[in-house]
Amino acid sequence: LDEFQLTARYFAPLAREFPGAFGLLDDAAIFSPGAGNELVLKTDTIVAGIDFPPDELPHFVARKALRVNLSDLAAKGAVPRAYLLDLILPKNTDEAWIAGFAAGLADDQAEYGVHLLGGDTSSTSGPITVAITAIGEVRVGRMIRRNGARHGDIVFVTGTVGDAALGLEVLRGKSMASDSTDAEYLVGRYRLPQPRTMLGPRLIGIANAAIDVSDGLVADLHHICTVSRLSAFVDAVQIPLSRAARSIVTRESGCLATALTGGDDYEILFTAHPDATPAIRQLSQAVGVPITNIGRISALSGGEQPRVTVLDDERSLQLRSEGWTHFSTT
Amino acid sequence: LDEFQLTARYFAPLAREFPGAFGLLDDAAIFSPGAGNELVLKTDTIVAGIDFPPDELPHFVARKALRVNLSDLAAKGAVPRAYLLDLILPKNTDEAWIAGFAAGLADDQAEYGVHLLGGDTSSTSGPITVAITAIGEVRVGRMIRRNGARHGDIVFVTGTVGDAALGLEVLRGKSMASDSTDAEYLVGRYRLPQPRTMLGPRLIGIANAAIDVSDGLVADLHHICTVSRLSAFVDAVQIPLSRAARSIVTRESGCLATALTGGDDYEILFTAHPDATPAIRQLSQAVGVPITNIGRISALSGGEQPRVTVLDDERSLQLRSEGWTHFSTT
Repeated sequence: LDEFQLTARYFAPLAREFPGAFGLLDDAAIFSPGAGNELVLKTDTIVAGIDFPPDELPHFVARKALRVNLSDLAAKGAVPRAYLLDLILPKNTDEAWIAGFAAGLADDQAEYGVHLLGGDTSSTSGPITVAITAIGEVRVGRMIRRNGARHGDIVFVTGTVGDAALGLEVLRGKSMASDSTDAEYLVGRYRLPQPRTMLGPRLIGIANAAIDVSDGLVADLHHICTVSRLSAFVDAVQIPLSRAARSIVTRESGCLATALTGGDDYEILFTAHPDATPAIRQLSQAVGVPITNIGRISALSGGEQPRVTVLDDERSLQLRSEGWTHFSTT
Repeated sequence: LDEFQLTARYFAPLAREFPGAFGLLDDAAIFSPGAGNELVLKTDTIVAGIDFPPDELPHFVARKALRVNLSDLAAKGAVPRAYLLDLILPKNTDEAWIAGFAAGLADDQAEYGVHLLGGDTSSTSGPITVAITAIGEVRVGRMIRRNGARHGDIVFVTGTVGDAALGLEVLRGKSMASDSTDAEYLVGRYRLPQPRTMLGPRLIGIANAAIDVSDGLVADLHHICTVSRLSAFVDAVQIPLSRAARSIVTRESGCLATALTGGDDYEILFTAHPDATPAIRQLSQAVGVPITNIGRISALSGGEQPRVTVLDDERSLQLRSEGWTHFSTT
């Protein structure tokens, strides 16, 4: 199959319902935000052997590539709308792989209400590489920024933290889950992010600052602190852990640090005024996602640099690193 | 340097003048088209060893990656505005390479008036890979489509055709330019596309259908014919060749076919009503780019499939292939 046949068979169906994609039969796509809205744009790449195991099923590769981008949109309060795809494949990739990949996209398009706008397929002598540019919408001027945190804000996080990092440890045989159900749950959280796309847009008017947890809880909170020129204190005992994660953390030393600094959670970390607490509790119930108070934001004292302190039983927890940075760690 | 330091040093300066990029210090960017405009979106990837030589200078890699996308926007009549970048690099890439790459982007941002909106850097065990998503604007509903060609239209092409394909042949030692000046010119046309961004938007209201010549003149004209449900006839002697290309074509048999089917011209191929000819001549003079009548568009006779016939001295020229498709040729 050449590029045109591939496009017609597997990718054009993903663009069918979006008029501006022109059935992938033109050079470019058209997009207009709705009246009073502006576009929120995000691009992220995943690479085999770095961001997912080389033998990962294509269905999961596709959905992970899309979801890591949707997670950023969610953290900004944007409603996801569409995406563009750059699919870079080894020359020997078979059609079944591509069919599985397209099926994964189709499933997630249905789940998240997004459409393929356009794309490009390339061949490579290297590993499978998927770059996606996702497009969402927010009301003009309402995107939730990283830099809006204020002194006195409470730090909240959605869902549970550390599952994906521990799932990767389990996958690598470095940690042991209590049983196969726990192992499956944790590995599943690593393989397939659950972007908080329903919750994110409802944080507008509540959250002062937000980010999705992809580099690791501490690193991502540090990002908020750096651009907001503030510091944060996190209470380790308040970190929301799943039952499966808690079981490992209580048995294996160092695993709490893994949970706090491991990447790939794809939860939303945000700060809000204490007065917003009832609205946050209500929102949590409405969408069925736990939202946990894990710490607070504090002004810098003279000359202090923005930093994140994790308090464990009143002691400051020493972490070897704050989290994932692509060029220094794999 | 980790990803954050790289971003701060080399990429944040490229986003400085675009407020919606937030200095690359947020998770996502904001973009709004101007009043009465809509966005035109295009993504394309280039891979070392496939789309450019593995030892290509980073300055050229950056500009090629950007320009292949700007060329698509130009062919659609869009004014380029911004882009997102996915930069996927081998782990041993040194800082000088990244500095050269960023400098190439800076030069082209100045030349084309575009801004970096956001991006992602990843590491790979494979070759250098650059995916760019470019964003332009057109008046609502005015994008020049591929499918607008009509029976009786004249086929026009900007600039000269075949230089890049012959430049690649020269680079590979398969063809010989007349002298070093010619060789340099042809190789330059391969290394660095010249997207017709000034001309493209002025084709709105003139061109009925347009595409940029990236797969090869015949293949790209075929794309127009397929979606317009028409056929085309191209007069080989009318094909605009540069002096350097003509010198090879007259000496080496097969090189006319290379010029007609080779990719990477990044000229605009369009069709227009014969009455538009004076306006096209005027436009050509105004922007200082030749625009040549190379053939005509014709209705399909009963049962006929859309096709492109190249007439050379009244005989139909037999071409082994129509052009470049990524998965069947390198």
